Amino acid sequence: MLIGKTAVRGTGRELRAVDPSTGLECEPAFNAGNANDVAAACSLAQDAFDSYRETTLEQRAQFLEQIATNILDLGPALIQRAMQESGLPQGRLEGERGRTVGQLRLFAKVVRDGRWLAATLDSALPDRAPARPDLRLRKIGLGPVAVFGASNFPLAFSVAGGDTASALAAGCPVVVKAHSAHPGTSELMGKAIQAAVTNCGLHEGVFSMLFGDGSVVGQALISDPAIKAVGFTGSRQGGLALVRAAAQRREPIPVYAEMSSINPTFLLPDALATMGRKIGAGIVDSLTLGAGQFCTNPGLIIALEGEHLTAFTEAASEALQGKAASTMLTPGIHAAYVKGVAQLAETSGVRLLARGQVGTAACAGQAALFITDAASFLTTPAMEEEIFGASALIVSCQNDAQFKQVAEYVKGQLTGTVFMTAADRAIALQLLPVLERKVGRILFNSYPTGVEVSHAMVHGGPFPATSDSRSTSVGASAIDRFLRPVSYQDMPADLLPASLSDENSLSLWRVRDGDLVHA
Amino acid sequence: MLIGKTAVRGTGRELRAVDPSTGLECEPAFNAGNANDVAAACSLAQDAFDSYRETTLEQRAQFLEQIATNILDLGPALIQRAMQESGLPQGRLEGERGRTVGQLRLFAKVVRDGRWLAATLDSALPDRAPARPDLRLRKIGLGPVAVFGASNFPLAFSVAGGDTASALAAGCPVVVKAHSAHPGTSELMGKAIQAAVTNCGLHEGVFSMLFGDGSVVGQALISDPAIKAVGFTGSRQGGLALVRAAAQRREPIPVYAEMSSINPTFLLPDALATMGRKIGAGIVDSLTLGAGQFCTNPGLIIALEGEHLTAFTEAASEALQGKAASTMLTPGIHAAYVKGVAQLAETSGVRLLARGQVGTAACAGQAALFITDAASFLTTPAMEEEIFGASALIVSCQNDAQFKQVAEYVKGQLTGTVFMTAADRAIALQLLPVLERKVGRILFNSYPTGVEVSHAMVHGGPFPATSDSRSTSVGASAIDRFLRPVSYQDMPADLLPASLSDENSLSLWRVRDGDLVHA
Repeated sequence: MLIGKTAVRGTGRELRAVDPSTGLECEPAFNAGNANDVAAACSLAQDAFDSYRETTLEQRAQFLEQIATNILDLGPALIQRAMQESGLPQGRLEGERGRTVGQLRLFAKVVRDGRWLAATLDSALPDRAPARPDLRLRKIGLGPVAVFGASNFPLAFSVAGGDTASALAAGCPVVVKAHSAHPGTSELMGKAIQAAVTNCGLHEGVFSMLFGDGSVVGQALISDPAIKAVGFTGSRQGGLALVRAAAQRREPIPVYAEMSSINPTFLLPDALATMGRKIGAGIVDSLTLGAGQFCTNPGLIIALEGEHLTAFTEAASEALQGKAASTMLTPGIHAAYVKGVAQLAETSGVRLLARGQVGTAACAGQAALFITDAASFLTTPAMEEEIFGASALIVSCQNDAQFKQVAEYVKGQLTGTVFMTAADRAIALQLLPVLERKVGRILFNSYPTGVEVSHAMVHGGPFPATSDSRSTSVGASAIDRFLRPVSYQDMPADLLPASLSDENSLSLWRVRDGDLVHA
Repeated sequence: MLIGKTAVRGTGRELRAVDPSTGLECEPAFNAGNANDVAAACSLAQDAFDSYRETTLEQRAQFLEQIATNILDLGPALIQRAMQESGLPQGRLEGERGRTVGQLRLFAKVVRDGRWLAATLDSALPDRAPARPDLRLRKIGLGPVAVFGASNFPLAFSVAGGDTASALAAGCPVVVKAHSAHPGTSELMGKAIQAAVTNCGLHEGVFSMLFGDGSVVGQALISDPAIKAVGFTGSRQGGLALVRAAAQRREPIPVYAEMSSINPTFLLPDALATMGRKIGAGIVDSLTLGAGQFCTNPGLIIALEGEHLTAFTEAASEALQGKAASTMLTPGIHAAYVKGVAQLAETSGVRLLARGQVGTAACAGQAALFITDAASFLTTPAMEEEIFGASALIVSCQNDAQFKQVAEYVKGQLTGTVFMTAADRAIALQLLPVLERKVGRILFNSYPTGVEVSHAMVHGGPFPATSDSRSTSVGASAIDRFLRPVSYQDMPADLLPASLSDENSLSLWRVRDGDLVHA
């Protein structure tokens, strides 16, 4: 474990990754920490907060870039370890490394731009009755952030993933609880960050990383008074446990938990008639990508019954049957997938359409495609449960009313997808406001599994997709999750932060007396 | 009660305001609603949401301005009724009406500017591998908002107050639970909004207003599935009850509860030495303003012991003794104040310095000033409890270390005030980061009771001052509380919202490929 600048071995139970292709444990063993380790890491984070949040924009941006450089400097050793611990192929992990590094560099740019400061100045009006004071607002970090690494993306959503990058960008020290599924990968990534802290001359408490069980280390972490916000990606059960624990603190804190989503895909009539077979094949490619590692997997497909849906179904089934089994990330994910598919197959009203090929790896995931009718779907809540992996359910609707009823029925989602042509415009216009209320990202004639790291991305959505729909965990806006505004009234000029100085020495975009202005 | 476009009398118990100057009930009686009334109002709000949130910026701004006009058109009848129900003098209520109208007009400007949409466009990069899709983000309203009117400002923080104005500005229908302390004022203000809904041709569900008890109407309102966020100003007990109820919903929702604050004021040594007597008189003026109706009352004064503190204390005591009792807002607030002052007077380590004049009104509040030493303060949590009204506690510190210890000890606050001169700069620099972590607004050489409605105001702060430090309940940024981002991927041009069109037909400030640009 990394507690500030030191590396320590926990005194708790041994943790070993399992190679999901063989089912065998990987060496070396790591050891779980305890509540004292958590307290030490959080205390350092608290000590680091005031100095870290007052680093200059340039210092903080360089720190994020240094982390990116240090990750690339890990070279093939990182990819090899991650392959062993996740079963993901080399190409996907190299791509994920690129995403992780790109994400850190994007946040470096976001930090330098300084728009996240929301610098706002209202001039004093001494002659008004009553006189108006001089008021200046900027945003500052919330405080130390606890990040719970995810298992499904061992690089991009883990130790140096989006939550860590955005919290560090916001000026918040980070304490990571590394996911036990990939401790070796976590150690490498954690050391890259730890080294960047030293490289940049920052307070050692800016970053710590702990191993351990949720019931001990996780619970202690979310309960520590120094922690002011939480980032999490994982199961609904895990996310809701964190939300509850955070609410029970003496001082409740925000939890950004990205949880389950089945990502409904709506096939509008003309699109289904004219492109049905092509979409059928395409959606199966999206569904099976990365053994179903994506939170944005298209797990629910909604269309009107009839010959065109039959053609779509045939094409999708055919494509799925040709899909080789792929190695799922962990034995736990694999077991949950097998169980979920078996339960869905036995659910009244559900019919199995096709299975993918059987695999030989220990955690081989065999894709699955099911169909049901809208009446059954609308009366069987279990059909809406996420099955994490390459399993999808088609919902066949009798008419437009039922189609829209299904759209209104589904819970909050990360994404909603619409396949349409110009001829489908009228029904698309009816569907659109429903989707806006239900999802964080609406796609047209494309597949939801790619999640671009950019400025206009929303990887979030209404509950239960996330615990807080007001934010995104991917993309530039993720920084906003860890900020709060502070207003300064009649502050002496020589005490003002640079972002709020009269001369705008940082050349920021600022709101002055209501208008957006540049230096 | 106003449920959409209809006015209905509740079937629950009779509610009458009490004139706090006489202690007598005011006619007419109003009647409490029940869960069916709540369901009807929420259902209408739900029905109104999709059309209301797609009103143009101009339509929505005109609606807010129409509410302001309708409030002014109520004329002296509004002021007279509010005087009777609150005991506040005419001048203060006229000022508060100006603030309320100004607030609505500020949000009209904010809506027209459209920066709240956070319109963000990332261009497609079809030749990149993998290709980047076209992504466009805007913010939309969260959905219908429940507003719990406050008792302390019957106009500016009540039916048509900041929570309602900012939620309507964000495109969210509002269901208000009016405070039972001023039902007549609430009815007048509610009708002004109801008329504006009709004037502007909006869906009737955009606004409803209910009377009733928290345990029935309040509970039903926060539990209704249509409600997606809550605004509240009041006691810590009331706010925490709402936070708990919101967390227990099937779909948890954000609660913006502005609760208790004792607003520490720090007198730095040279300021105390050179301006002590003047500050002593000034702080008493601030403390007693509006019978202590302000959440930002300076209830805690921290300074180093010695002759200068003695001089300050004498001046403040003298000023306080000359203050006439003022009529407190409600019998409940008055009773809590009397009890709180009595308890503090009996607390070990606390000494009464001065009382204001005794009054003759039923709810006359007699100001109070106490002193304690830092060692007692740091070990007696009860001393940190808010006494809502004109009561303050001076904390005398033995040295700089103890002074800073008190600053670190206090919980989250709406405001923190620093009185300083240039000679106090070194100690101010030590205090500043502590205050930034603790409060929403930091004031210098001024008094916290004025809360300007402007762009750079933060009326918020860390728990327990509010339930969500990421926001403000006063000022332009309050609109952000009721928004969430939605991203559109590869959306056909003829479906794009105007705010995201290629041609930028609304001439908005937008972020395009990371850079802020104007039409």
